[in-house]
Amino acid sequence: MDITRDKEEIQSRIGQKRMDHVLRVADYAKDLAVHYGLDPEKAYLAGFYHDCMKIRDLDLLKKAARDLGLEWTEEFDQAPQVVHGLLGALAAEKMYGVRDRDILNAIAYHTTGRAGMTDLEKIIYLADYAEPMRDFDGVDQVRKEIKEDLDQAMYQALNRTIQYLIEKNSYITIKSLEARNDFLKKVTHGKIY
Amino acid sequence: MDITRDKEEIQSRIGQKRMDHVLRVADYAKDLAVHYGLDPEKAYLAGFYHDCMKIRDLDLLKKAARDLGLEWTEEFDQAPQVVHGLLGALAAEKMYGVRDRDILNAIAYHTTGRAGMTDLEKIIYLADYAEPMRDFDGVDQVRKEIKEDLDQAMYQALNRTIQYLIEKNSYITIKSLEARNDFLKKVTHGKIY
Repeated sequence: MDITRDKEEIQSRIGQKRMDHVLRVADYAKDLAVHYGLDPEKAYLAGFYHDCMKIRDLDLLKKAARDLGLEWTEEFDQAPQVVHGLLGALAAEKMYGVRDRDILNAIAYHTTGRAGMTDLEKIIYLADYAEPMRDFDGVDQVRKEIKEDLDQAMYQALNRTIQYLIEKNSYITIKSLEARNDFLKKVTHGKIY
Repeated sequence: MDITRDKEEIQSRIGQKRMDHVLRVADYAKDLAVHYGLDPEKAYLAGFYHDCMKIRDLDLLKKAARDLGLEWTEEFDQAPQVVHGLLGALAAEKMYGVRDRDILNAIAYHTTGRAGMTDLEKIIYLADYAEPMRDFDGVDQVRKEIKEDLDQAMYQALNRTIQYLIEKNSYITIKSLEARNDFLKKVTHGKIY
């Protein structure tokens, strides 16, 4: 991996504003990895590549999916914003030489979440959700929760996201609900009815 | 079917209070069927049998599932309240002689909903949701919506239910989200991002 070279190439596709966000996520993810005794470099790399396929134009996104061999499903038509994670993981592997499966999964599921997330996957999801320039009601409390308990923070983040998508009349992916139910089980230790 | 005989048998299992609810749902479903030009007798029967396996005791519920050949899944442990619909459909078929597949499906999915619901399935879901003794914020508006547009009413009911389950920290079934996304597509005519 040559991050300096990849940075130029990725920025040419996603723009400088998005790249600034990417670097904030990478830094935040690295801090969280240190905080939780995980590998900071892996966290930084996952953060660095997480939005490398965040392409706004739907036709260009579809072309990139074809080029990288990602089959377009009906769900993608309903929620094209979930494509860039899966596509980003493919690009990180095929274009940028990332081989670590945990990093690739953290990129793939950073928007939707999924059941059975690793700590690295949680950190990338949460760093993207609450990076320093994010501004929403209660964001400071969220950042505090993130340093206290990754599962609890994921559970709350997924609930807030589902509620937000309901208010916006937007599609909600099945993967996000599977993740939410999985974290519900973790935070309640299976004691739910 | 001998409704008078079945009524005694079902009431001995679910109690009189629940049976009163059942009869209100059956009447409401019949009214809605007339309103929408559907078969009122089918709607009444689906309403009449919809809670025939609403057994509170978890051990008895599991025994009934075994007796009727319903395999117990991990999801049932997390959300035992969804079992009684599936089990009710099996009981209606095997114990009470209901043969109409649409009625059986309306019973099976009256708690969770599912993608691709028929009008009869919607009517039973909504009659159960908003029968005359239900009392929640906005219930009169909900009843009005139900007479205006079944898809819109289903979409709103599923959203409210998901939000309620989030607030209660309760498990949310995948089937309910699939239903919600399906109705989102219907009410927005597929124009969502």
